Amino acid sequence: MARIDLNCDMGEGFGVYQLGNDEAIMDYVTSVNIACGFHAGDPLVMRKTVQMAIKKGVAIGAHPGFPDLLGFGRRAMRITPDEAYAYVVYQIGALSAFVQAEGGKMTHVKPHGALYNLAAKEPSLAKAIAQAVYDVDPTLILYGLAKSELIAAGKKIGLRTASEVFADRTYQQDGSLTPRNAPQALIADEQEAVAQVIKMVNEGYVRTLQGVDVPIQAETVCIHGDGPNALAFAKKLHETLQREGIEIRAVV
Amino acid sequence: MARIDLNCDMGEGFGVYQLGNDEAIMDYVTSVNIACGFHAGDPLVMRKTVQMAIKKGVAIGAHPGFPDLLGFGRRAMRITPDEAYAYVVYQIGALSAFVQAEGGKMTHVKPHGALYNLAAKEPSLAKAIAQAVYDVDPTLILYGLAKSELIAAGKKIGLRTASEVFADRTYQQDGSLTPRNAPQALIADEQEAVAQVIKMVNEGYVRTLQGVDVPIQAETVCIHGDGPNALAFAKKLHETLQREGIEIRAVV
Amino acid sequence: MARIDLNCDMGEGFGVYQLGNDEAIMDYVTSVNIACGFHAGDPLVMRKTVQMAIKKGVAIGAHPGFPDLLGFGRRAMRITPDEAYAYVVYQIGALSAFVQAEGGKMTHVKPHGALYNLAAKEPSLAKAIAQAVYDVDPTLILYGLAKSELIAAGKKIGLRTASEVFADRTYQQDGSLTPRNAPQALIADEQEAVAQVIKMVNEGYVRTLQGVDVPIQAETVCIHGDGPNALAFAKKLHETLQREGIEIRAVV
Amino acid sequence: MARIDLNCDMGEGFGVYQLGNDEAIMDYVTSVNIACGFHAGDPLVMRKTVQMAIKKGVAIGAHPGFPDLLGFGRRAMRITPDEAYAYVVYQIGALSAFVQAEGGKMTHVKPHGALYNLAAKEPSLAKAIAQAVYDVDPTLILYGLAKSELIAAGKKIGLRTASEVFADRTYQQDGSLTPRNAPQALIADEQEAVAQVIKMVNEGYVRTLQGVDVPIQAETVCIHGDGPNALAFAKKLHETLQREGIEIRAVV
Repeated sequence: MARIDLNCDMGEGFGVYQLGNDEAIMDYVTSVNIACGFHAGDPLVMRKTVQMAIKKGVAIGAHPGFPDLLGFGRRAMRITPDEAYAYVVYQIGALSAFVQAEGGKMTHVKPHGALYNLAAKEPSLAKAIAQAVYDVDPTLILYGLAKSELIAAGKKIGLRTASEVFADRTYQQDGSLTPRNAPQALIADEQEAVAQVIKMVNEGYVRTLQGVDVPIQAETVCIHGDGPNALAFAKKLHETLQREGIEIRAVV
Repeated sequence: MARIDLNCDMGEGFGVYQLGNDEAIMDYVTSVNIACGFHAGDPLVMRKTVQMAIKKGVAIGAHPGFPDLLGFGRRAMRITPDEAYAYVVYQIGALSAFVQAEGGKMTHVKPHGALYNLAAKEPSLAKAIAQAVYDVDPTLILYGLAKSELIAAGKKIGLRTASEVFADRTYQQDGSLTPRNAPQALIADEQEAVAQVIKMVNEGYVRTLQGVDVPIQAETVCIHGDGPNALAFAKKLHETLQREGIEIRAVV
Repeated sequence: MARIDLNCDMGEGFGVYQLGNDEAIMDYVTSVNIACGFHAGDPLVMRKTVQMAIKKGVAIGAHPGFPDLLGFGRRAMRITPDEAYAYVVYQIGALSAFVQAEGGKMTHVKPHGALYNLAAKEPSLAKAIAQAVYDVDPTLILYGLAKSELIAAGKKIGLRTASEVFADRTYQQDGSLTPRNAPQALIADEQEAVAQVIKMVNEGYVRTLQGVDVPIQAETVCIHGDGPNALAFAKKLHETLQREGIEIRAVV
Repeated sequence: MARIDLNCDMGEGFGVYQLGNDEAIMDYVTSVNIACGFHAGDPLVMRKTVQMAIKKGVAIGAHPGFPDLLGFGRRAMRITPDEAYAYVVYQIGALSAFVQAEGGKMTHVKPHGALYNLAAKEPSLAKAIAQAVYDVDPTLILYGLAKSELIAAGKKIGLRTASEVFADRTYQQDGSLTPRNAPQALIADEQEAVAQVIKMVNEGYVRTLQGVDVPIQAETVCIHGDGPNALAFAKKLHETLQREGIEIRAVV
């Protein structure tokens, strides 16, 4: 039976600032990636989000990002592989302590934003991140963009990996995402977005922007947690996948 | 045979900034408290310091502080017990991941600066910190000022504790330290400082500023890592204690 | 003719985080205090808020706070007067540059949160802040709690001051605010809150929690910018004051 | 008579961390670029450095950098021109307030590290920075790499500019610096470094790594403030230039 994990970035508030609709979205996803205080999140938010995730029974992952709260970790920074390694170890550890304190278990790591994007393309960065995850806990699953350098690095180092696909982004012939600022990068139509996921899960193919089907491995789908329609879309995707007989289950 | 642990705060650089003389001092102490990125320290510094500590064979502890790099964690901040709890969990976790990645073992936690001082006096803060340590790992040893609320909270919660004394600070009748800004707070004479430690370890007493001997438990002595004479004093204290037949050994 | 200034804290977002309803509230106040990047605010937010304030024609002030984004500047920090001085100079300067770049004029300074509260009570902190304002620009008006040490320090140093009162807080016999965590600290009833302001403006008295009228100088009223009823209350207060024939005008 | 300005980055400490040898170096330079709290520097350091600069009579400039204390502003960050504009306005303003408070005058702005390097090559970033400087104060002089986009943008917008050259870096045929990580990027020999400056000032040419002389405008030379030989080299350069009859004077 075909199966898929639905994941969502969470715990991205900071101090008095709130972001997203974590509690409601948790009902429709099977794994959550919790910000670790670098691009977003703070110790109180992390604790609360971990508690919520344990209560809801979703898989818990660390969501390490660049040390750039001001830019929400979305701006590329030219850090060295050594820096990437250390930043990822640090953030996994920080979240891990909350998970331990609450009696839960961390299952995965998914880099955030610009770190995720750079690690998809740069082998040295990808390797450093994979090594960091492996060194802290070799049983952790590394989430990364399907067909990316990060997934390759994870596999090479001996980590389990989860290839991530997007419902609302279009794909190129080489299996990469259409750059966000290019025309037709986003799939605005919800039906179409849901259909893209179903095709990827059931057939192992994605129809590219150029109209050709290319193979893609879909192990987890990224659900956005904010935006006015986030919750409605999460619900719709969840329902449609179930109706299609696709099992929605954490990667673990 | 009388024994004592010598501990020193380490890993307090940040980015391009260096502080202290960690490597040299490590030869004369038996446990180190490593800054965790809040009051000082960063992921690269933490990793390097953990590697060094493992190589030198000293006991490794987390040294959590206030989120105040600008003030080096030395300024009291009115945080809630919940905040203290979460800050301590976070920092222990961050350091812990480096220790794990390097194949070492974390043995203790010692709060830093103003957090240490407030936790010595405020039961609710002390309890929150002790709880944080316990929840992350109940085998960790909590270092705190001898006779402080922190030590009391640690014992009550079921943690092993290590009562810390100071070589170069004078004591009051109630066993508390003479406030740093008071006259005669510091013991400038090295001989006197060393003699104070020996008396505390061998006799279990400290001569107060008022000239009276009061009982004190000395399980670990705080060695300062910076300052022009830090290294020389560490060496001298180490040598004198050995000559006196006092075993210098980590608390573990 | 009786007159009053209505002021509101603004520009308290940070990066992706938004806070408050600045644009709408600006229609009902005559002066705004803009966060300067320490407790909240960032360069982009500051620029945008300054542009909005100039467009709406409200008086612009700097709103310096503690360097504690995590705690939104609401947590007391034990900083020295020298530190307070430098932090206030820095923040006034930062905001001032945006005002200059946009062709506006900064008219006042109002410390934020815990800095405001501590400066109300501690003469040395109050003096340092007043000195900072004076040294950067002696024509700036210093906003502070009515009857506070900050107002006293401002007057002594030769600054113009604006005594601030609160619509929704109760007062004690000595003219101080009832501590926020005490029972009856807040006035929940909007009519009552408005009536308190009118009494303060028209009569120069406030009815204390103890039922006695004590004299108070009301030059500016603090309007809260967030909360579900912030906008509605601002509008109501504005309308009622106008109906009462009280002129609503910036202090300048 | 040939003349040149010698400039040095200063005030790059932070909290307890010290960097460089500002006071001693100030005797051998004519202008200083003071860090503004983003890549380094804090309000206390800024104040102290401004006081020192006024006392020593050197020209004072702002030294804005990326918001990256952890990386000392040396890591490229993909910020937008709008962000660059706002970051520069903010930092100029912050320093400017200290200069005003101390009764001095700010004369110039020199971007720091990766911001300087990116602005040398990217027209949109260069324009945003030049616009920021102009909007805050059109009389400020913009320091930038000789032949860079930043200098071009400054001139176009109507700012006075100062073309900066390096004593200890080799040059390429197009007048650009040999990338720092390339072989032969640095001139280790002090005599050679001094000779390169003299040739640039007196002849308006630099001998490239390829052995060809290319024209270069040298209005200010960057002196490094840290490193074991910084002070000795500053002194030597200063003395040699004077002996050669070159006037050492701030750009103003």
